Amino acid sequence: MDKEYVVGVDVGGQTTKIGIVDRRGEIPAQTVISSKFGPDEGEKFMDSVCDTIKSLAANIGLDQIQGIGIGAPNGNYYTGMIEDAPNLPWANGKRVFLKQYIESKLNIPVTVTNDANAAAVGEMTYGAARGMKDFIMLTLGTGVGSGIVINGALVYGHDGFAGELGHTRAVRHNGRRCGCGHDGCLEAYASAIGVAKTAREWLESGKYADSSLASIEEITSKDVYEAAVKGDQLAIDVFNYTGKILGESCANFVAFSAPEAIVLFGGLARAGEFIFKPMREAMNANLLSIWKDKISIIPSALKESDAAILGAGALAW
Amino acid sequence: MDKEYVVGVDVGGQTTKIGIVDRRGEIPAQTVISSKFGPDEGEKFMDSVCDTIKSLAANIGLDQIQGIGIGAPNGNYYTGMIEDAPNLPWANGKRVFLKQYIESKLNIPVTVTNDANAAAVGEMTYGAARGMKDFIMLTLGTGVGSGIVINGALVYGHDGFAGELGHTRAVRHNGRRCGCGHDGCLEAYASAIGVAKTAREWLESGKYADSSLASIEEITSKDVYEAAVKGDQLAIDVFNYTGKILGESCANFVAFSAPEAIVLFGGLARAGEFIFKPMREAMNANLLSIWKDKISIIPSALKESDAAILGAGALAW
Repeated sequence: MDKEYVVGVDVGGQTTKIGIVDRRGEIPAQTVISSKFGPDEGEKFMDSVCDTIKSLAANIGLDQIQGIGIGAPNGNYYTGMIEDAPNLPWANGKRVFLKQYIESKLNIPVTVTNDANAAAVGEMTYGAARGMKDFIMLTLGTGVGSGIVINGALVYGHDGFAGELGHTRAVRHNGRRCGCGHDGCLEAYASAIGVAKTAREWLESGKYADSSLASIEEITSKDVYEAAVKGDQLAIDVFNYTGKILGESCANFVAFSAPEAIVLFGGLARAGEFIFKPMREAMNANLLSIWKDKISIIPSALKESDAAILGAGALAW
Repeated sequence: MDKEYVVGVDVGGQTTKIGIVDRRGEIPAQTVISSKFGPDEGEKFMDSVCDTIKSLAANIGLDQIQGIGIGAPNGNYYTGMIEDAPNLPWANGKRVFLKQYIESKLNIPVTVTNDANAAAVGEMTYGAARGMKDFIMLTLGTGVGSGIVINGALVYGHDGFAGELGHTRAVRHNGRRCGCGHDGCLEAYASAIGVAKTAREWLESGKYADSSLASIEEITSKDVYEAAVKGDQLAIDVFNYTGKILGESCANFVAFSAPEAIVLFGGLARAGEFIFKPMREAMNANLLSIWKDKISIIPSALKESDAAILGAGALAW
């Protein structure tokens, strides 16, 4: 084969996706392995990653890989390590030498960063941010992640940990407690968990007694979306509220780096105009006049199932 | 002369400072001209700048200037223009072709940006941020300006207007009206005007009847500082309040770009620990644990009288 290929590795709490990626974003081979290894089994996990890469490459008769990109929780670009990832037992409270270990085993250059940064690079290389030099990626999943691109390059900060926009304060007055221990973080509202929580809280307040969500035991953000589609007022109001908080926060982000666009990825982004409309309105209502109606908020253009591998792979180019 | 020289031009609302600067930050010649020209006299102002540069250079027998850096309100790096500066009658509601005009007259490359960005470059080249690749400069003057440096380069954003941190929302609930028309901006609190306003509001509330500030007709931030030095409780509380708001905002900025330090410049920065201490405490109380006690807040290391010229000059290297 004379085409160039890289490998994208997306390390998640449950599973790790591994795929071979070409320049155009095609994925000729991919698979999923388990991320579930015990506290002392970090090397076992990395051995499993290496073996999988070798067999994927062998399967399609590939003898050369240009590089390996890895998106992982608390993955650090500078150190090449996972630095304390509470959701991965083998990386909880410790540092895992991802780059160093895999490079020495496979003799292929490895680039590591966190999942949201990888998503931003994927979007810039293959997705909605192609051709953009300044944009902000928000990944609205279980949490709120972010990857910031300025002048064509990811922002890592002095320590590799830049881009924690989910933990900027969106609500300062009686803000909801966030998983990080602070009150009022964007993530406490604009994540899937935050949306479900808002719906539950409002139901409990008694104001929306006739909402179809009232009959659901454990509301998820997907339930809220499906109810909104059917015209449920509680669900629609929850998206309006969440979108407003997101839009207000985005106005702050624009004042920082004046991006061309904000790209949304993840579950909540699929709620479409239910979330985009209030978000756009709140952002514009809070922007300095020089930016009003000039910054777009757009959905990711990558297929959700491919995005993680493409993003990680794009790191390696 | 075989040394290299640039010219720094700092355009202010009342006066414009112009100086010749060498690599080490010495200023062998400098002067001040008036910025006060009428609505149609933009070219007259620029002619005055050009003539002054020529005579300064002639005075010290200089026949070659490497470049000219200009810091100006709403100066745009990409376009080289001042884009609508309400405080300059000749640039109010219009674009002034600063770079194009002066380059064509003097045949020397001209770089334009806003004053806070110039200050950041000055600090990086000659001041407290020497050797730093990631820091944020906050200029606490009549307003709150900011210059953001990431990976050794100023952040301009897609349109040249990045770094308006004074207009991020510091207080979302019943926030004070800012000059920009929005409520709760950082600038409405952490500027000299904001500090004086806080003091006046608290006096009017009647809670601080025995404050020495009660006898002053038009309180300035300098009055508040002098009262704080003498132990006046109102003044001390005003700085605590202002520092807390600044520190909370800085926690958001750190979550964005993970800078090594925040550098403070301008009148309020001279209040020393009265403002630095509450600021540091509030920032650390709001940071993710990975950054707690790791990001410094430091004062500018440039003499206030030279800083503007050095900052503008540093742009030109």
